[in-house]
Amino acid sequence: MNIELIGVGLIGSSMILDLRRKFDLNVIGHDLNSHNLNYALKNGIINQVGNPKKFSNCDIIFLATPVDVSLKLLPEILSIIDKNTLVIDFGSTKEKICKAVNDHHNRDLFLATHPIAGNEFSGPNHALNNLFKDKIQIFCEKNKTRKDLVEIAKKLFLSLGMKIIEMAPEIHDEHMAIVSHLSHISSFMLGKTVLDKKSKIDIQDLAGSGFESTVRLAKSSPDMWTPIFSQNKYNILKILDDYIKNLIDFKTELLNDNFNQIKNQIKYTNELKSVLDKLTKKK
Amino acid sequence: MNIELIGVGLIGSSMILDLRRKFDLNVIGHDLNSHNLNYALKNGIINQVGNPKKFSNCDIIFLATPVDVSLKLLPEILSIIDKNTLVIDFGSTKEKICKAVNDHHNRDLFLATHPIAGNEFSGPNHALNNLFKDKIQIFCEKNKTRKDLVEIAKKLFLSLGMKIIEMAPEIHDEHMAIVSHLSHISSFMLGKTVLDKKSKIDIQDLAGSGFESTVRLAKSSPDMWTPIFSQNKYNILKILDDYIKNLIDFKTELLNDNFNQIKNQIKYTNELKSVLDKLTKKK
Repeated sequence: MNIELIGVGLIGSSMILDLRRKFDLNVIGHDLNSHNLNYALKNGIINQVGNPKKFSNCDIIFLATPVDVSLKLLPEILSIIDKNTLVIDFGSTKEKICKAVNDHHNRDLFLATHPIAGNEFSGPNHALNNLFKDKIQIFCEKNKTRKDLVEIAKKLFLSLGMKIIEMAPEIHDEHMAIVSHLSHISSFMLGKTVLDKKSKIDIQDLAGSGFESTVRLAKSSPDMWTPIFSQNKYNILKILDDYIKNLIDFKTELLNDNFNQIKNQIKYTNELKSVLDKLTKKK
Repeated sequence: MNIELIGVGLIGSSMILDLRRKFDLNVIGHDLNSHNLNYALKNGIINQVGNPKKFSNCDIIFLATPVDVSLKLLPEILSIIDKNTLVIDFGSTKEKICKAVNDHHNRDLFLATHPIAGNEFSGPNHALNNLFKDKIQIFCEKNKTRKDLVEIAKKLFLSLGMKIIEMAPEIHDEHMAIVSHLSHISSFMLGKTVLDKKSKIDIQDLAGSGFESTVRLAKSSPDMWTPIFSQNKYNILKILDDYIKNLIDFKTELLNDNFNQIKNQIKYTNELKSVLDKLTKKK
């Protein structure tokens, strides 16, 4: 199978590592970062480095770039590929990219997906084996993709042990704002709040594993996350408002010594135990 | 060594498990929760169950209860023990408890400590071996404790591989509001914000490891955390204000499409990488 991988980062590289154990692949890699390309080449993730904007006769193109880059590249790619190439993106936002190619004459060669996998690191040097096993793969607007190509995509992702679900792009983005994008903002701003005090306190000595876990996402890449926030702006603004309101309510309760109310709120959030326990088992 | 353990929870039980490998201990346990007491007895954490408010001739009393309970019990305990018993508390707040016994005639039998260890779970069934290895143990107002008793405490905690540092109680509470208590509030309220949407979205399917990590602390005990928030109210209000302000600033930048500013903020919080990497190595 001939694959062009555009964006030799954590997700794209991990995907190739896993697929290589299932299929015979020839992978041509593209990345603006030559350091990443060299790493991927030396470590057998890609077989060769491709010419920018030129895609040879390949079966599948994986678009694994930051979502602003994917949004720009996808229409260009769809315009130059031949009729038997499937293009799959892995971006964390789906509404804008689906809209951007809705009327493209090659719309049916594109499958919009979002694998719920990854971590706070970036680059092929952080690629992980089995990253996608037992994880969710979301397909959006599957019916706009040619059926035979959807079947190929299904075969790939099922072979990695993923569970495929379908969602409308708008619903996807709304739900992701809630379960993923807000966590990142909460973590980035917690990190900023604590870092602003670093001249005053010894974070390394005093911080425990709780702080470490809560700010883990604050290590995430600005190049990846800024365009996600941009593309999902309105959904994020809504849930961010809810979060800020909850924090202000907490502050008011603390100010007024409403500790029964605070205790009840904590008991309520403890409900997450059952949700998270199932999540952990899934992994 | 005869020890009375008041509060047979995660911290007290883990402490006993580790000390048992270093010293010959006879441990009498006290807890309002008979389930915890029975578990600790059956699993060799404690040797016997004690009489409430009656402490036999023991060498050390560990006060490992929620901080509101410790604040109430400590003066009573100091009033009834004999002159060679050392009382050590492990609470996450230090200012109120130090003030409460400052003028007590047996003040010098008490050592205020805070081991930076633990997790979101509670109870002796979650006790962990080597929980304290390479962790920080904070001593507050060490000079108000009798020297020979401080030496005994040092010997205990150093034997567990802890690093002892000293802090004034007010500084401790101010710094803990920043590196620990705020993380918990951020996580509790993130949990609440997402749970409020649970009728609408499938959290289990859509949430990834990022959400899981960021809301891990939202599983923490209301009985333990409500009194911490109460006792450290004013320090928490200050840093919570900073956090809310940062979130509102982020929201404003998003609303105004100031994505360069957002990217710069993320780059700034990425500085946490070096802080957290050292933290992780420490563990």
